[in-house]
Amino acid sequence: MSIFDVIAFDADDTLWHNERYYVEAQARFAQLLSQYHKPEWVHERLLDTETRNLQHFGYGVKAFALSMIETAVEFTEGRISGVDIQKVIDLAKEMLSADVQLLEHVAETVSQLVIGNRLMLITKGDLLDQESKILRSGLSEYFQYIEILSQKTRESYQRVLKRYSIVPERFLMIGNSLKSDILPILELGGSAVYIPYETTWLHEVADAPADDQQGYYLLENIAQLPALLEKLEK
Amino acid sequence: MSIFDVIAFDADDTLWHNERYYVEAQARFAQLLSQYHKPEWVHERLLDTETRNLQHFGYGVKAFALSMIETAVEFTEGRISGVDIQKVIDLAKEMLSADVQLLEHVAETVSQLVIGNRLMLITKGDLLDQESKILRSGLSEYFQYIEILSQKTRESYQRVLKRYSIVPERFLMIGNSLKSDILPILELGGSAVYIPYETTWLHEVADAPADDQQGYYLLENIAQLPALLEKLEK
Repeated sequence: MSIFDVIAFDADDTLWHNERYYVEAQARFAQLLSQYHKPEWVHERLLDTETRNLQHFGYGVKAFALSMIETAVEFTEGRISGVDIQKVIDLAKEMLSADVQLLEHVAETVSQLVIGNRLMLITKGDLLDQESKILRSGLSEYFQYIEILSQKTRESYQRVLKRYSIVPERFLMIGNSLKSDILPILELGGSAVYIPYETTWLHEVADAPADDQQGYYLLENIAQLPALLEKLEK
Repeated sequence: MSIFDVIAFDADDTLWHNERYYVEAQARFAQLLSQYHKPEWVHERLLDTETRNLQHFGYGVKAFALSMIETAVEFTEGRISGVDIQKVIDLAKEMLSADVQLLEHVAETVSQLVIGNRLMLITKGDLLDQESKILRSGLSEYFQYIEILSQKTRESYQRVLKRYSIVPERFLMIGNSLKSDILPILELGGSAVYIPYETTWLHEVADAPADDQQGYYLLENIAQLPALLEKLEK
């Protein structure tokens, strides 16, 4: 008997690689602007533009592409060429069709946990892009529920739990973002397993809860999850 | 007693104006390129780009903005200025924050139908943009279920019906797009009310069902809906 009614997973950088595509795209973007500015400076300006545009464009590759274009126009004082703008759009299309690379141990862990547990996938970003990645990941059959949100906040999680009549105390969320996957769930009284990824987007940085906070667990990788669940169920 | 368990509404151009913002944006976009090409020619090229990009970018304002930029770069042979590219991005931001203008009779019809019926809203496009419009419309309290889809196909409707255990025979959909709102529902065995809007985006054009097709109804405006329902329930 599981002590959780539903075990939910974040997707990007929890089940499959995502941030590394953004890091690579940013490097190519900085290269494009290298005749005008230093890479570090381009990265900072791009982050400023993304932050300012979040309210308009939200998360995802299309928002990222529009912010790159805006940054390029602004900080070359309009001298960026049409050809280079097209390169940014092509970069976005590449990102949208890039291979979905599962993180290590994900396939075997998920296929093990699906036995005896109801699994949910909760991600945020562009609807079409996320649906396409879920399909291409080969994991969709394991998830009984799939939720794509525009933002991961206490309120948006609350709506998901309500929709499926799940009580927070019997809900476990696993993810790589303290801000989006862990803290809102703990606030609601649920449990959360934090598995840090190799890099964290600056918008997702937050302070970790105390190690002894009720319901909070830190793991190095997803392969340790079944053992943690077994321990909790004793 | 209603003969429908759920009455679902499309949102854009069924509950509130949408296409007119795109038409206006296209006119301003054509104006931006007027030194290079005629407006009709720009419209055709933009539609080509949008069609080609649908698979990558899906529906919504961000996809539209990226297609405008790509069209501008391509058909000015890269001569479009950075200032004009920025104007296109600003146009997108304006669209995303434009007032939500309800269609005539919508407010009173929805508030009338909510009595004794379970209402659903089913729309497609950008998640954040659609959520924001629903919120700003002032109508969200009337809808027990809200579904934002990346595409409106037979399969995506089927998933929605399954999620809420609704049988198609007791499901009614109301919308302005034959292709997205009407035909898939009729195929599933549900009922559908087609209320044409003043303009139809070329991607949404489709042949109307025969007037006597089972479950298909054509109305001029939403104010006629309560009378139709009353007739059907007799």
